[in-house]
Amino acid sequence: MKTALTKNWPVRRVQTGRGNRTTADVLAVEEPLELRVRGRSIAVMMRTPGHDADLAAGFLLTEGIVRSADDLYDILQCRDTDARANQGNVVEAVLPKSVRVDFDRLTRHVFSGSSCGLCGKATIAAVRQQFPRVTRPLRVSAARLRDLPAKLSAAQPTFRATGGLHATALFDEQGRLLATREDVGRHNAMDKVLGHALRSGWLPLGRHILLVSGRVSFEIMQKALAARVSVVAGISAPTSLAAEFARANNQTLVGFLRADRLNVYAGRLAPAR
Amino acid sequence: MKTALTKNWPVRRVQTGRGNRTTADVLAVEEPLELRVRGRSIAVMMRTPGHDADLAAGFLLTEGIVRSADDLYDILQCRDTDARANQGNVVEAVLPKSVRVDFDRLTRHVFSGSSCGLCGKATIAAVRQQFPRVTRPLRVSAARLRDLPAKLSAAQPTFRATGGLHATALFDEQGRLLATREDVGRHNAMDKVLGHALRSGWLPLGRHILLVSGRVSFEIMQKALAARVSVVAGISAPTSLAAEFARANNQTLVGFLRADRLNVYAGRLAPAR
Repeated sequence: MKTALTKNWPVRRVQTGRGNRTTADVLAVEEPLELRVRGRSIAVMMRTPGHDADLAAGFLLTEGIVRSADDLYDILQCRDTDARANQGNVVEAVLPKSVRVDFDRLTRHVFSGSSCGLCGKATIAAVRQQFPRVTRPLRVSAARLRDLPAKLSAAQPTFRATGGLHATALFDEQGRLLATREDVGRHNAMDKVLGHALRSGWLPLGRHILLVSGRVSFEIMQKALAARVSVVAGISAPTSLAAEFARANNQTLVGFLRADRLNVYAGRLAPAR
Repeated sequence: MKTALTKNWPVRRVQTGRGNRTTADVLAVEEPLELRVRGRSIAVMMRTPGHDADLAAGFLLTEGIVRSADDLYDILQCRDTDARANQGNVVEAVLPKSVRVDFDRLTRHVFSGSSCGLCGKATIAAVRQQFPRVTRPLRVSAARLRDLPAKLSAAQPTFRATGGLHATALFDEQGRLLATREDVGRHNAMDKVLGHALRSGWLPLGRHILLVSGRVSFEIMQKALAARVSVVAGISAPTSLAAEFARANNQTLVGFLRADRLNVYAGRLAPAR
């Protein structure tokens, strides 16, 4: 698997009063990853290379194709791709025969989309997956949540180098950092973390907390629900549909999480001691 | 068309030393928009309601379906949708018979995606559109570019209210602001501006400048190229593929644009006087 998260690039810096100079800048790498199941291409994601198997596994999980580690034998890198440029950018998910893949459902009249994570869906009805709502939500204290951003920052070196990456982190209910992944795409960072959890046999994640560096959209909450996560915290703002989805599915949604404050948009926290 | 960009939402604010209080917060609205052509659904975009006709037109432009205002008769709101909740969230693009729509090309084995704007594409080869490269690039001075962020901020009220929206602005070569659009999705904000330009009969935009509030990805540069824009500036960082795409297509790509500085990642600026 490719692992270069960043690439050096010559940049011309223009600054008032300091003139111009050409230096090297570090850019977040963006490349397509094509995902195949049973030999058929089912999606292309523009992603930051690295942890491709996690991304593929998380994508399959959050799209409702696989539900546990038992549903996924392996993720293989395809080496027979036509173009040399695509080497390392095609993976095949090997699923047991028992996992039914409805390719007809996957075949939709769709050709591109937005930055939403849902753009492959050609009808509004297809946007919503059918994951069961949370029945026993985790209650976490505000004090525990407020400690999380510092832990994410410490474990997120590429983000600081380029300013161009999103990060997602998974914590247990004591606030211990279990995994963190970065990507140019918000949804990819989430899929990578959840895919890692799936492949590690950690699912379901009913006693875990997800922290995302960017905005919390509807799709982020739905992906969390696919892994049974009931507490999602964001550094930035949620959208209206994210808050509505969280409320309807018994999830706790926290936004604008900082060391000294936070906002609760859905669900509730554990009482302060 | 729906126009509510924001929605009030009750939020529990927890702040160290100041206790808890419940207040109203303003969230960016996120709802699906289903786009139909000749009665067939071709995409769903999670978007901020408002300027839906611009979004639909821009999507058709940047996907290579339509090329000018002559290729698009109208964008109609569909009122026959099944679910009441979807009222105002389905539009039909009315195209002249002369515009060929290759529905077979649009039908791919795809069901969802990332936050990249490309996730409907099921093979890597399908990711790249075939727009001609820029032949006569516009040269803009650094001084002119550095004035643009302040103009975008002044015209971007919702962004400041919610912190959750992306904005795209279109300027002429003298730096006059012609249009600005906001959306929860970066690519939607771009499509809305380009769709507005298309519907206004402004294409091609070879003498115009695009400014985007967020990260500049490959797809942003490709969308700009669809409208013949040769100068794209971002407030944030570009990705590696955006820089490579801009260089290959003779576009100028500026990042980290501020009032006193900027970085040039591809192309070049007009010399300072």
